[in-house]
Amino acid sequence: MAAVGSDQSLTLVVVDLVGIFVFAISGGLVAVRKDLDVLGVLVLAATTGLGGGFIRDVLIGATPPAALADWRYLLVPFGAGLLTFFYHPALGRMERLVDTFDALGLGLFVAAGAAKAIDYGLGPVPAALMGLATGVGGGAVRDVLAGRVPIILRRSTLYAVPAAAGAAVTSFGLQVGLSQTLVTIVGFVVCAGWRLLAMWRGWEAPVPRGSASV
Amino acid sequence: MAAVGSDQSLTLVVVDLVGIFVFAISGGLVAVRKDLDVLGVLVLAATTGLGGGFIRDVLIGATPPAALADWRYLLVPFGAGLLTFFYHPALGRMERLVDTFDALGLGLFVAAGAAKAIDYGLGPVPAALMGLATGVGGGAVRDVLAGRVPIILRRSTLYAVPAAAGAAVTSFGLQVGLSQTLVTIVGFVVCAGWRLLAMWRGWEAPVPRGSASV
Amino acid sequence: MAAVGSDQSLTLVVVDLVGIFVFAISGGLVAVRKDLDVLGVLVLAATTGLGGGFIRDVLIGATPPAALADWRYLLVPFGAGLLTFFYHPALGRMERLVDTFDALGLGLFVAAGAAKAIDYGLGPVPAALMGLATGVGGGAVRDVLAGRVPIILRRSTLYAVPAAAGAAVTSFGLQVGLSQTLVTIVGFVVCAGWRLLAMWRGWEAPVPRGSASV
Repeated sequence: MAAVGSDQSLTLVVVDLVGIFVFAISGGLVAVRKDLDVLGVLVLAATTGLGGGFIRDVLIGATPPAALADWRYLLVPFGAGLLTFFYHPALGRMERLVDTFDALGLGLFVAAGAAKAIDYGLGPVPAALMGLATGVGGGAVRDVLAGRVPIILRRSTLYAVPAAAGAAVTSFGLQVGLSQTLVTIVGFVVCAGWRLLAMWRGWEAPVPRGSASV
Repeated sequence: MAAVGSDQSLTLVVVDLVGIFVFAISGGLVAVRKDLDVLGVLVLAATTGLGGGFIRDVLIGATPPAALADWRYLLVPFGAGLLTFFYHPALGRMERLVDTFDALGLGLFVAAGAAKAIDYGLGPVPAALMGLATGVGGGAVRDVLAGRVPIILRRSTLYAVPAAAGAAVTSFGLQVGLSQTLVTIVGFVVCAGWRLLAMWRGWEAPVPRGSASV
Repeated sequence: MAAVGSDQSLTLVVVDLVGIFVFAISGGLVAVRKDLDVLGVLVLAATTGLGGGFIRDVLIGATPPAALADWRYLLVPFGAGLLTFFYHPALGRMERLVDTFDALGLGLFVAAGAAKAIDYGLGPVPAALMGLATGVGGGAVRDVLAGRVPIILRRSTLYAVPAAAGAAVTSFGLQVGLSQTLVTIVGFVVCAGWRLLAMWRGWEAPVPRGSASV
């Protein structure tokens, strides 16, 4: 990521770690509800927190992923997993809070994911797709491992639409040469803000009309 | 793909795009039947159309995959997803037609997938396996995400056998130095033709004899 | 793997092939119980035997994976799959034996997986994680494809804990400069020995206390 100065780099790392932490908590809570043991909680926390970034890095050829090149990255999902293991009743009661943090994590991941893909030379459309994959990939792996249809595919309040929008804003902003800091913040605000509004107002995406043939 | 001249290249790209289109339609139809919203339809269409190629490219080290290096590739699965979203009742009634196109897409993918793996220096046996993965990988991801056992694993009319045969014919033909155009066409015909015959005649693969111990 | 001499290399290859064989049998048996056809048995045997190594190699950037660079590697999972297809009643009756071999395969995979990650320049913590992924990844892919929650996540006798311990012992031993042969053997013994003891004694991992909120 040669184009990123050291201050921006530090900001991106912090942003990344907060996103991993929040997503790992959500993975750990799913594991607790599925009645898994301590290793199951840790594994689901780690795959949820790291899965989206791993999918992006493998596809754009940025291997090994950052989280495998620096062991401190791994402390975060495992810390979040242990925290969930011991304090899940309290965390579970704070579901509203966890959902809010999930929206913030989603915003961080899609903006940072799209920016990294642009840094690796992808065009704006594929980079937006990689931002989306970064944001929703970890949750998809979590849900597949836990034996349920990924939340991104389930009919519910808007989740993927704000994620795609934030990723697209970041990608195209960087493509036309705007400042990385500015563009990443705007992409984050678009995604997280829209997602939070959708949660509060109960907005849903359009569904196919007419009955499905079988 | 240095060995491919520009005309052959163009042919392979067109073939690839048609395969992506057909597979994306099948992913979108599964999404509609699972009662997903518009983003779910688009995501399942894209993962079905692109998944097999992504698995192959990641395993042979051809990252980023072609579909991420050229944004026009992404228009095809998203166009197919939108088409399915709006016109699924008509598409669903044409199931026989969709299945026929799926057989053609399968033939295109296994032949093109095996040829690309050979170009990347793999031997004929691994290249045949990569051709098979290209052909059935997208459908497997689609089915896992939709919460069902992949069609390639389910007991039904022959699907994986023709795919493996087409991939093997392509790989070994290229290995012994036959013309790429000829070999790719023969691999396609073996796979798609056998699959279509299996559909029309109801051919099935052998199953294990004796009751499974539990 | 420049640091590995040719004798050690040969040992690692044999160890790897035995692990692939044992895991492929377990995948084939799941396929038989799920009532799949012959291709389903072969595909599930191959993905179970090769999946963990593929996940590791893709993440550390060692593409194409060894099993795709040398076709003889592919004979093993397919041979195991055919064996399971034809002799599954006998293999199923030997479940205790298969479980014992599975413990040995697990030990081989976590030790060899961690050693390969160290060879590719990863630090000891990420290398331990890669060893764990090598050991449990194939089984996780098998279970996801077969439509069940991965065994590593299910509450049962210890599986992932011995795997993580063996991977960590190998990683940290290599990191401090001990002999690769010695360290790999110790890592194998820690993992396989602990797993076998857990099976015989019925040891289980701690579970979350308190009821999960919903």
